[in-house]
Amino acid sequence: MTSKVRAPIPNLDAGERDLGPAPSHYLGRVLRLAVGARFVAFDPAAAVEADAEILSMETGRTRVRLSAPRPAKVIATREIAWIHALSKGDKLDDIVRDATELGATHLVVADALRSVVHLDAARATARRERWAKIAREAARQCGRGDPPAISGPLPWAEALAAAPQAAARFCLHTGEAPPLAAGLLDALAGGLPLAFAVGPEGGLTDDEVACAEQAGFARASLGPFVLRTETVPAAVLGACRILAAVTG
Amino acid sequence: MTSKVRAPIPNLDAGERDLGPAPSHYLGRVLRLAVGARFVAFDPAAAVEADAEILSMETGRTRVRLSAPRPAKVIATREIAWIHALSKGDKLDDIVRDATELGATHLVVADALRSVVHLDAARATARRERWAKIAREAARQCGRGDPPAISGPLPWAEALAAAPQAAARFCLHTGEAPPLAAGLLDALAGGLPLAFAVGPEGGLTDDEVACAEQAGFARASLGPFVLRTETVPAAVLGACRILAAVTG
Repeated sequence: MTSKVRAPIPNLDAGERDLGPAPSHYLGRVLRLAVGARFVAFDPAAAVEADAEILSMETGRTRVRLSAPRPAKVIATREIAWIHALSKGDKLDDIVRDATELGATHLVVADALRSVVHLDAARATARRERWAKIAREAARQCGRGDPPAISGPLPWAEALAAAPQAAARFCLHTGEAPPLAAGLLDALAGGLPLAFAVGPEGGLTDDEVACAEQAGFARASLGPFVLRTETVPAAVLGACRILAAVTG
Repeated sequence: MTSKVRAPIPNLDAGERDLGPAPSHYLGRVLRLAVGARFVAFDPAAAVEADAEILSMETGRTRVRLSAPRPAKVIATREIAWIHALSKGDKLDDIVRDATELGATHLVVADALRSVVHLDAARATARRERWAKIAREAARQCGRGDPPAISGPLPWAEALAAAPQAAARFCLHTGEAPPLAAGLLDALAGGLPLAFAVGPEGGLTDDEVACAEQAGFARASLGPFVLRTETVPAAVLGACRILAAVTG
């Protein structure tokens, strides 16, 4: 397996180009590439990639030659929105990482009533940028050409509305609920987009669960043991990914 | 919580009983219990458990006294061995936590060639005790009555040998391999115990993969994106758990 180094570069176009300080730092200091090195440049927004070669490097400026862009090879093949309530500490960082590796295409952070943290506008913007950066980095590491779109924190009802139009919707719930499996297998076999909504550490309120049901989310259980909120994305998206191989 | 040692004994009934060679081996050699030791006997098939005391032990025969059986709290219903190569930093802590919540019954840490860390005997013991403590705590948090057994670090071949006798075995591999899904669904539907083996950050060597294949582990892939080693347990055990609801 050739696992060429990948770096995100926006607006790919064939030809030579000078890159500014941020990508130069990434190529030279983070990836430790030097003049003559080849890598794969990818544009997450457009899901395209191109072969790239470093022609010259000086502080804050790197000249590269790009091949004609082509569709990014490895990208998510199903639309999956993951809606997760704001949680304590850096849990959302781990959730973004897991969900990116496991194929989520939209990550929507929700502000739930029992979210221990609530962010003002400035901190929300900073955090969203941080999550987007983590998603780009996780996509690069796992060889995925299309990092998920990140939005939020949004009020619970607005976050739910971010589910793709035709998606099969599940609200993962710690209380009594039918098992996720049956509905999930049907949705996967039917080729439907998916949307999942998950509460914070303290769980969703009855009103929030009712709101999700009104938005078409079916309550679904993950079995007898109570999972930590941060374990849920990998467990559910892992199941989606593993089953995708047999359900198409 | 008293996290008593648990041992599977079929057809529980109050009173004294002689156990044959297999449970005697398990109690004496695997669990290292002696005359006078108390443990919880459980019958996974009937989901009941009873307090047990060892009255006498001789080769191949152990006499125990059992209390009246009671419904088992909430325990794992399938035997799942998770064999994971020693990984950097505190990744194994997270892996133990995830695997406990998601129903692994045995956690075996393996010392692989590319494991960045190798522990001497004293540090290995300390670490194993730490992992056991994390497993007990995770079990308590998620309401599970039976924390997984922890062993290792063991050399790779010995770790693989810890798979339950009749288990369907999968070596999760980043290279070319058939998808995990088909084999996993068959094993789940057949009610088989399961065993999974996973390499460290740098992956398994060709020799280690060959060793796993010789031990009956089928190479299995988790799809196009390369997962971090610490994401694999939640993804795979999540799939097992979610599918258990439809495959029994």
